[in-house]
Amino acid sequence: MNYPESVSKLIESLSKLPGVGPKTAERLALHIATKMKEEDALNFAKSLLNVKRELMKCPICGNLTDKNPCSVCRDNTRDRSIIAVVEEVRDLIAMEKMKEYRGMYHVLNGAISPINGIGPQDINLPTLLERLKNEEVKEIIMATNTTIEGESTAMYIAKLLEKTGIKVTRIARGLPVGGGLEYADEVTLLKAIEGRREFK
Amino acid sequence: MNYPESVSKLIESLSKLPGVGPKTAERLALHIATKMKEEDALNFAKSLLNVKRELMKCPICGNLTDKNPCSVCRDNTRDRSIIAVVEEVRDLIAMEKMKEYRGMYHVLNGAISPINGIGPQDINLPTLLERLKNEEVKEIIMATNTTIEGESTAMYIAKLLEKTGIKVTRIARGLPVGGGLEYADEVTLLKAIEGRREFK
Repeated sequence: MNYPESVSKLIESLSKLPGVGPKTAERLALHIATKMKEEDALNFAKSLLNVKRELMKCPICGNLTDKNPCSVCRDNTRDRSIIAVVEEVRDLIAMEKMKEYRGMYHVLNGAISPINGIGPQDINLPTLLERLKNEEVKEIIMATNTTIEGESTAMYIAKLLEKTGIKVTRIARGLPVGGGLEYADEVTLLKAIEGRREFK
Repeated sequence: MNYPESVSKLIESLSKLPGVGPKTAERLALHIATKMKEEDALNFAKSLLNVKRELMKCPICGNLTDKNPCSVCRDNTRDRSIIAVVEEVRDLIAMEKMKEYRGMYHVLNGAISPINGIGPQDINLPTLLERLKNEEVKEIIMATNTTIEGESTAMYIAKLLEKTGIKVTRIARGLPVGGGLEYADEVTLLKAIEGRREFK
């Protein structure tokens, strides 16, 4: 016996999600088909359509938004002289959850990764350079991931902005709060030592 | 910044899937919003709706189907004198992938689990008893999971069918093929020894 066609199609759709393999897709599809309430499935389908219909990338910062410009770029209480450059929208959200940062953002929607064929021209970089021409920016915080791709992207952009005279900083790398020294890898520990600061 | 409403709703829908926590739901929703092709999202939504519109449980065996009866019950080349009782549709699919079993199925759509408040009246059992009255069944293979719930369900049904005189068997429990003795737990090993058979 094969699955009914509608189930096979749902499995196919689900397995396009990141981290969802064919086995998981099968399990999820069967859950939807047999256990999920009809109303919930309907809402699920609706929100899928709405997400694609209503959302766009903010033309200024690349953030995900249903209004133009996005809620961060629209917010006049924020400090426009400082821009945090992040890789993905979820990184912006993580920063916002901190509730401390009141500057602006720039979402690259990716990171430079030669091994995956992603070069500087494939990320949302031109709009950043455009912004720097028009806006009075004093500091750019490179808040890309601390992975190889994130570090190279940060370095590449820092190099690119050298001539503009704008201060470019990199987020601190060190031990996560609550982390034990014994569990930290060598590189993190090295960064933590290098980045040490005096008690004030 | 909060997520646009359509993203929040999609996160809510995704987190209703089994094994998908709020963090994963967020990651998947952002993937759908930013990386998934519009066409793929549309097909995803369509298959969600179709799964709920077109599918039903086979009134005979409880299998998931878009036709009545299901493709297994419809298949006249199969051996109607033997029924494998499984917990879920995915177990039936697993049995079918084996391509060796040519009997019928009965899908309980659950297992007896007092701790979760699931009693014999909550699983697809009455239709099995009904089938036994009308069909000429010679053997029932209890192919429920080898978990506590699956074992109790198998035992409960075996007890229930004692008077009917129909042969009730249980799938073998032992070492999985390719498994090393050292990795097997004590109960599995015990079952493997108990279930030993002579070389033929």
